[in-house]
Amino acid sequence: MEGSWSETKSSNGRKLHIRGSVTSSPQSVQFAEAKAEKSGKAVRIGVLGASGYTGSEIVRLLANHPHFGITLMTADRKAGQSIGSVFPHLITQDLPDMVAIKDAKFSNVDAVFCCLPHGTTQDIIKALPKSLKIVDLSADFRLQEIAEYEEWYGQPHRAPDLQKEAVYGLTEILREEIKAARLVANPGCYPTTIQLPLVPLLKANLIETRNLIIDAKSGVSGAGRGAKEANLYTEIAEGIHSYGITRHRHVPEIEQGLSDAAHAKVTVSFTPHLMPMSRGMQSTIYVEMTPGVTIEDLYKQLKIAYEDEEFVILLEKGVVPHTRNVRGSNYCLLNVFPDRIPGRAIIVSVIDNLVKGASGQALQNLNVMMGLPENTGLLYQPLFP
Amino acid sequence: MEGSWSETKSSNGRKLHIRGSVTSSPQSVQFAEAKAEKSGKAVRIGVLGASGYTGSEIVRLLANHPHFGITLMTADRKAGQSIGSVFPHLITQDLPDMVAIKDAKFSNVDAVFCCLPHGTTQDIIKALPKSLKIVDLSADFRLQEIAEYEEWYGQPHRAPDLQKEAVYGLTEILREEIKAARLVANPGCYPTTIQLPLVPLLKANLIETRNLIIDAKSGVSGAGRGAKEANLYTEIAEGIHSYGITRHRHVPEIEQGLSDAAHAKVTVSFTPHLMPMSRGMQSTIYVEMTPGVTIEDLYKQLKIAYEDEEFVILLEKGVVPHTRNVRGSNYCLLNVFPDRIPGRAIIVSVIDNLVKGASGQALQNLNVMMGLPENTGLLYQPLFP
Amino acid sequence: MEGSWSETKSSNGRKLHIRGSVTSSPQSVQFAEAKAEKSGKAVRIGVLGASGYTGSEIVRLLANHPHFGITLMTADRKAGQSIGSVFPHLITQDLPDMVAIKDAKFSNVDAVFCCLPHGTTQDIIKALPKSLKIVDLSADFRLQEIAEYEEWYGQPHRAPDLQKEAVYGLTEILREEIKAARLVANPGCYPTTIQLPLVPLLKANLIETRNLIIDAKSGVSGAGRGAKEANLYTEIAEGIHSYGITRHRHVPEIEQGLSDAAHAKVTVSFTPHLMPMSRGMQSTIYVEMTPGVTIEDLYKQLKIAYEDEEFVILLEKGVVPHTRNVRGSNYCLLNVFPDRIPGRAIIVSVIDNLVKGASGQALQNLNVMMGLPENTGLLYQPLFP
Amino acid sequence: MEGSWSETKSSNGRKLHIRGSVTSSPQSVQFAEAKAEKSGKAVRIGVLGASGYTGSEIVRLLANHPHFGITLMTADRKAGQSIGSVFPHLITQDLPDMVAIKDAKFSNVDAVFCCLPHGTTQDIIKALPKSLKIVDLSADFRLQEIAEYEEWYGQPHRAPDLQKEAVYGLTEILREEIKAARLVANPGCYPTTIQLPLVPLLKANLIETRNLIIDAKSGVSGAGRGAKEANLYTEIAEGIHSYGITRHRHVPEIEQGLSDAAHAKVTVSFTPHLMPMSRGMQSTIYVEMTPGVTIEDLYKQLKIAYEDEEFVILLEKGVVPHTRNVRGSNYCLLNVFPDRIPGRAIIVSVIDNLVKGASGQALQNLNVMMGLPENTGLLYQPLFP
Repeated sequence: MEGSWSETKSSNGRKLHIRGSVTSSPQSVQFAEAKAEKSGKAVRIGVLGASGYTGSEIVRLLANHPHFGITLMTADRKAGQSIGSVFPHLITQDLPDMVAIKDAKFSNVDAVFCCLPHGTTQDIIKALPKSLKIVDLSADFRLQEIAEYEEWYGQPHRAPDLQKEAVYGLTEILREEIKAARLVANPGCYPTTIQLPLVPLLKANLIETRNLIIDAKSGVSGAGRGAKEANLYTEIAEGIHSYGITRHRHVPEIEQGLSDAAHAKVTVSFTPHLMPMSRGMQSTIYVEMTPGVTIEDLYKQLKIAYEDEEFVILLEKGVVPHTRNVRGSNYCLLNVFPDRIPGRAIIVSVIDNLVKGASGQALQNLNVMMGLPENTGLLYQPLFP
Repeated sequence: MEGSWSETKSSNGRKLHIRGSVTSSPQSVQFAEAKAEKSGKAVRIGVLGASGYTGSEIVRLLANHPHFGITLMTADRKAGQSIGSVFPHLITQDLPDMVAIKDAKFSNVDAVFCCLPHGTTQDIIKALPKSLKIVDLSADFRLQEIAEYEEWYGQPHRAPDLQKEAVYGLTEILREEIKAARLVANPGCYPTTIQLPLVPLLKANLIETRNLIIDAKSGVSGAGRGAKEANLYTEIAEGIHSYGITRHRHVPEIEQGLSDAAHAKVTVSFTPHLMPMSRGMQSTIYVEMTPGVTIEDLYKQLKIAYEDEEFVILLEKGVVPHTRNVRGSNYCLLNVFPDRIPGRAIIVSVIDNLVKGASGQALQNLNVMMGLPENTGLLYQPLFP
Repeated sequence: MEGSWSETKSSNGRKLHIRGSVTSSPQSVQFAEAKAEKSGKAVRIGVLGASGYTGSEIVRLLANHPHFGITLMTADRKAGQSIGSVFPHLITQDLPDMVAIKDAKFSNVDAVFCCLPHGTTQDIIKALPKSLKIVDLSADFRLQEIAEYEEWYGQPHRAPDLQKEAVYGLTEILREEIKAARLVANPGCYPTTIQLPLVPLLKANLIETRNLIIDAKSGVSGAGRGAKEANLYTEIAEGIHSYGITRHRHVPEIEQGLSDAAHAKVTVSFTPHLMPMSRGMQSTIYVEMTPGVTIEDLYKQLKIAYEDEEFVILLEKGVVPHTRNVRGSNYCLLNVFPDRIPGRAIIVSVIDNLVKGASGQALQNLNVMMGLPENTGLLYQPLFP
Repeated sequence: MEGSWSETKSSNGRKLHIRGSVTSSPQSVQFAEAKAEKSGKAVRIGVLGASGYTGSEIVRLLANHPHFGITLMTADRKAGQSIGSVFPHLITQDLPDMVAIKDAKFSNVDAVFCCLPHGTTQDIIKALPKSLKIVDLSADFRLQEIAEYEEWYGQPHRAPDLQKEAVYGLTEILREEIKAARLVANPGCYPTTIQLPLVPLLKANLIETRNLIIDAKSGVSGAGRGAKEANLYTEIAEGIHSYGITRHRHVPEIEQGLSDAAHAKVTVSFTPHLMPMSRGMQSTIYVEMTPGVTIEDLYKQLKIAYEDEEFVILLEKGVVPHTRNVRGSNYCLLNVFPDRIPGRAIIVSVIDNLVKGASGQALQNLNVMMGLPENTGLLYQPLFP
């Protein structure tokens, strides 16, 4: 059967990208013969909020996915438009036009990626058919304590029952829970870069929970496609600045994950910086080792944690991760370095904020939820230069 | 059969990206059972000159190709190094270390991409086994007249017999010749952007051969990875300039292709500009229409020429091609616009100079030479933003 | 007398940048003892529309001007704010807070730079005291034919009498008229790069008026500080595109200037491109020489035209102008090159669009209007890298 | 007398930028009538190593200095060339051609800026006439302990006697010593951003000497103009990375300055990052306050330290410094923020690495050494956007 990216013309002369029902593993056999829609893909996907950067990234990633085919796209302000008019780089994708969320039909949808803004998502997800698998890329279901949600977002949580059901989608850490989940709260980009290295070290009690200092750097796409003066080319190019010092909304998510791992309340110092680049994120993390622990111990622990992982890669000793080496891909590169201050270590972790920090991890999660190999459709190599 | 991008662990614990011998079309059946190397790919590929940007781009594109597997990589100054040490963004690729060209064994190679500098390539290709299929990305075999080669490159051509055999690899224009070729001279990036729109119009006698004015703009990756002061970040960022005015070495290649199409000697005005961006190329082409011809005629002719093509896309009327909408992909976007000066038209054509302008078109050509569907392994969507 | 940039503390402890009433030349002696305001500068300046990039650029340039001191700044949406809060890079400037235009008092103002959006300016300038000297940076008074204004801007001109009085402020070309003007219409950035080289050549009848093809490239700051999706960093970085093909509003201004010089109606082909850079503009101009004329003739004519000019510099033969070599400065660099097509030539001209293309030329004009040496306060060297 | 930036033509028709002998303050009167060279400037300046970025920045800054005129420029590999051919942005500067250092004549030089690479400078400065004032921008005389120099630079110091005489040129901190100095070792860029905020706080015993964590970010121009693969546009744009972790050569300079201030040995954690921008530097500094100290205390101490300074500006509470707000200028912007971790604070400090981090501070120092107002010729406002 045909499994590569080839194409044929449909009878009406439009290009269709057809693939046979390829099966990647026993679990996924069930999809192979189940459904046959226009896309020829087994699983029918809805993308809610397709006019933003995380939505378009889902479309890009799915373009070569053997089993997931998009059958619904919503975007309120762009309703009636094609993906090619909203995102001309996706002009070759033969997809349904965008509809307003209120007009969306879910009868031919098996799973949705919810790429809507924070705050608007709770009501929408509450109203979805219970049969749908959902990966929510907003922050709405990431905080287990709804009181904490209210504190940081300034309004009560409107779907506390769903919150109880939601599984936090840091794939490498919570894979088993994600397998059984119906609603996955996809992690934030900063929390992904921070938890991936720190969770194994905290669990193993190799680093202290105090004086955890995180200096993070992000590309601008994390701010979305909204028209804001602060994100104009002229305001961003050739300069950097810190922002949201002590007040960034990813803080409670980071502290929740680290506290869980440490079985203790963790308070971090977290300072994000905006970089003159579209994609890419680095966290430089300054940690205190517990007494007697060495850099070598940290390195070994991370090696154990990630040596069988596809997407999290501990570099060889001394090699520095660069954000440009993960651009466009789902990889996270990590390493740990000695500090001049005795007893301390420096951890560097990089991702593409739109892929492993958003849409790529979302797809990784849906692969897991659907019983597919986790890397299905995700082995894009980084684009460099 | 397995055809998607999944992975399994080899017995020694290293990650291998294994795919079955997928067959895409009748012509390619022959490969399906022929060979079984470590990569599990049917066609064994050599990349000569793997330490430059076009070489690394070949590796990136082949990472998900169902039939082509790399078994040889050469790089004289980086001999002994792994791809991951020379190009850390390719660290996940399990490939043979680089060897010096003089130490290369071609016994387990079926085809090569030759990514060597201009001028060095003739002798190397002369010495290759005759059984190999070759796509040469240098300029060494692009000019049919070896006198012209000598004029522009300042030295006699050292493989005139091979030159006679070489087929110029502008896929959409010379597909049939490429099918039968052993040695394909892959086009330059500027010539690709220019010939794709102009050749059909000249063939149809819709534009004049006089006063053809081409203002072209290129990203910096076209200059390669060599350490030059002029290409430092500080010398390139936030500014533009023309270069090689009237003397750029792509001129004879452009004029050769246009003259062939017009059945008349064409002399163009060609001015390239260096842009502060890594990838991307645009040609803005100012043409005079032949008497009685309208913009509508040009549009229709381009539509006829490219409506069945996968990679050349004529946009809807009035839509302007942007280089960022092809970044990382093999697409060429085209459109034609009226000029204020009566009787003239403006044509805009954009590509990614490293993909359709180099390694992507090379892969497209090898697909054709091997009897595979031309788009095999090439349906990467553009990376935006 | 004190003439350098030094500072002293005022009695209330705030920093003041005080200069004595320096006299630069006999003509300007009159200012030396005339006025003494807080700034210690002789001429009191109003900046209308100080919250945009051309407004802030006026403030930057005037920071070291020996005779012009800002006493009024307007910005409707930022009324009540300080310059440092709107433009933090100007935080050291001790200037009056911004006021709404309706609240502006002109009793202590001698001259204004009008940096307001196109279309809004006519009514505001009509209402200004007749005693004020005005340099208008908008397009509102650039077109001599008000019918043409209506055609390109879609609304009737609301100050036709003022239009008759307005002098077009291309300093090097119309210096004598500017000396006597009360209202100067400061040229657009594209028209400046195009007219400076072409006007002397057309006047000398060295180039044809037909087939004038202009491929222009601009940095993003020309689009202003308004929040638009299209100008986000993520939408601009690492890519280029043409825009406004055949329909850019600078066309009538360009054709007006060239037609005046040629004493004949000139229709140009003009295609602007948006570059991933904040500042800088290049016009690459493709011209046909009149019979018998050579490149050498064009070069000589430009040399004659500009050898005594401070800000327009014809480079040595063969040297290519780069936009980065004028960044932040009022210079225009020019050169002329042979074309491969016999009888044609290529002209390259570069400026900083915010300086010689806007606020710098505006200051140059006000210097002229005030009888000061034209370069007063304008000899900033380009910032590179 | 003439003190502004105006120009006149010399008798041979070349442009000269002439200024009278302006006096800025009583101390500098002596220069007013002392010397009269071609430049008309009182103090004759040599720039050793004028072909690098710090050298060209000295030229840019001096272009409008009322008292300093360049009479000598050296550059070994560019000997015989004009400044305009090496740095086309300085083409309007009428300066002597570059000579090899061995051919340099110092008879008409009063002071030199030494912009040579680290390691080569000791022997050259040893050989200079003792009458010269010297500001050395290399690292060669920054470390008081020559043993430390040897440890970090891998070779013995070759001018230990000069080292004893050298004064460290952090102007705001060591102004009195600089006034009397003959040889000033101009600080590194990172050390400038770090010491300016930390020295006053350490002196006042408001922060601990332990757990000082500095995450620094630099533009690429700090790496100089040498042709290196790692600094190509394609290798730098759209990505970031840490470098020199724990091993950066600025560490001993930083620790020397902080230890002096604290009267105790300070060991810092220092991690620099390379940013995709040409200019600009930020240090984000994570400190532990001494018991009982509050953010308010830190803020007040910095306010006391810098409220009378021209170039070091403590922003209003809560306002975040951006590197783009100092681009091209000699300013350092500072602020201090509370940390989420109780007892800790975050300090942000930004400069232009080529100005306050190199050539600007060098000029500031020479102004001080020459008895001129420290800001003479340095009041350029930042270039934004």
